[in-house]
Amino acid sequence: MPTLVVCAAPVAGMPGCRAELVDPDAPIATATDAGLTRGDGVFETVGVHDGRMHDLEPHLERLAQSASMLDLPAPDLGAMRDAIALAVRSLLESLPATPPTALAKVVYTRGPEHGPQAGRPTGYVYADVFPDVTRQRTEGVAVVTLTRGYPHAIGAKAPWLLVGAKTLSYAVNMAAERHVKALGLDDAILTSTDGYVLEAPRATVLVRLGDEIVTPAAEGGLLHGTAQRAAFESFTARGFACSYRDLTVAELEAADHVWLTDSVQLLRPIRELDGRMLVVDRGLTDGVNADLLAAG
Amino acid sequence: MPTLVVCAAPVAGMPGCRAELVDPDAPIATATDAGLTRGDGVFETVGVHDGRMHDLEPHLERLAQSASMLDLPAPDLGAMRDAIALAVRSLLESLPATPPTALAKVVYTRGPEHGPQAGRPTGYVYADVFPDVTRQRTEGVAVVTLTRGYPHAIGAKAPWLLVGAKTLSYAVNMAAERHVKALGLDDAILTSTDGYVLEAPRATVLVRLGDEIVTPAAEGGLLHGTAQRAAFESFTARGFACSYRDLTVAELEAADHVWLTDSVQLLRPIRELDGRMLVVDRGLTDGVNADLLAAG
Repeated sequence: MPTLVVCAAPVAGMPGCRAELVDPDAPIATATDAGLTRGDGVFETVGVHDGRMHDLEPHLERLAQSASMLDLPAPDLGAMRDAIALAVRSLLESLPATPPTALAKVVYTRGPEHGPQAGRPTGYVYADVFPDVTRQRTEGVAVVTLTRGYPHAIGAKAPWLLVGAKTLSYAVNMAAERHVKALGLDDAILTSTDGYVLEAPRATVLVRLGDEIVTPAAEGGLLHGTAQRAAFESFTARGFACSYRDLTVAELEAADHVWLTDSVQLLRPIRELDGRMLVVDRGLTDGVNADLLAAG
Repeated sequence: MPTLVVCAAPVAGMPGCRAELVDPDAPIATATDAGLTRGDGVFETVGVHDGRMHDLEPHLERLAQSASMLDLPAPDLGAMRDAIALAVRSLLESLPATPPTALAKVVYTRGPEHGPQAGRPTGYVYADVFPDVTRQRTEGVAVVTLTRGYPHAIGAKAPWLLVGAKTLSYAVNMAAERHVKALGLDDAILTSTDGYVLEAPRATVLVRLGDEIVTPAAEGGLLHGTAQRAAFESFTARGFACSYRDLTVAELEAADHVWLTDSVQLLRPIRELDGRMLVVDRGLTDGVNADLLAAG
């Protein structure tokens, strides 16, 4: 059973914000909430590993940045922090034992068009247990590249495309995931129309090229990964040179190893890419995942 | 005050569907509803002119088609039809006089991930009065072209991009509209990266080239407009040759007249495009709008 915390008045500077635990199955958004009618809002998913939240502050910073890109009022990060803590604490207290993996999802919408809350953002957090991902983290995942339809640097020229904002308009990401499952695979790597690697629908791509670990530059048009930043620290400590830069599909195909990383599933090695088997470095992957679990 | 009708069990073949009038300000979607958390669902907006619904069946057909493109269970169109009728009738009965323009918005989401309704789509309709649009229909609107980021025929090659489905993931459309308002303009025409005209964020583009009226082919990657089909009938009756085909930005720039058309605002002539003044054919525009109002 997930836990749900609703934030009344989740906007920075607006008085009266309080985080309140409510029934997770009770409806909370009205028919004209722009989050529901237009995917007009932002979110973050915070990983909770062995009962500890990871990278909370980078997630809150990215929530504020996404909100700014959508011209939303700045969220009250203090209230969000309290709401996340309350949701996670309540989830853990409701369980007989601490789960290895859980998550807290923060949602912040433009709010309803009508009614007493008209024009005021809706904010809430729900926390839940996540299924066991040991197999994906150790044996690896099968992945296919899919086009995202965009050239890789379009975001800078066309800010209305909201490239790099973590919006609630995730229908394309979910359709890409369904497409992949229908192929009997685990995940997708989205690529640009001009031959660059972007990201997975819900994860960041990392590749090893010799002694270098590369992740696509966020300026190229994607989300700046929170888990990826922690992974870079671990790889750096292991002697790799880590860099953000444009990464071509040709480089992806030539890489020694490829991983996906996100806040919940952490580092997943890719064992199959576009039908070709890749070598999984079990020792390196386990080591970085151990670092990620120890950090946070 | 809008009216709201909730459809319990809005899925085709699922027993127990009934359309029920509820408080429009009461929350109806739970925290894990995929419509809210991921913009994962579809919608339609039906125009109601002088108290009469227009093009209801084409809207219902497109709702079913969009749902199919998202691999959603087929919606119960009979139940949706009843829900729309109830919402509109209730709205009109609540008003002292019939408004010139109103709308009914149908929303159909993948539903909640948790709780007693888990995995069952959420369906509802709300109806409301729309502001007076006489000025836009007669004097015209100022428009700017903005890139949609995609090449124009990407949808056929990449179905996961959901091009041509009317999804709830409208954050980009709303961002384009905010961008336009910040420029002091009325609307945008979205264009492809390879120089083709697509559509407006919430309307279809029509251009006059001599005796020809052209709208971009839906196969090129956009929604098939419902109001545009009715407009074609009117233009045809007036002696124009109407066609769906790929339309280049160069042709848009060379057009005699350009219009936007949608179910609620009907035909709006463009009086300014990318800073250049266009001639508005007041007589032709008024005539087609009169036909649209008389049809339906």
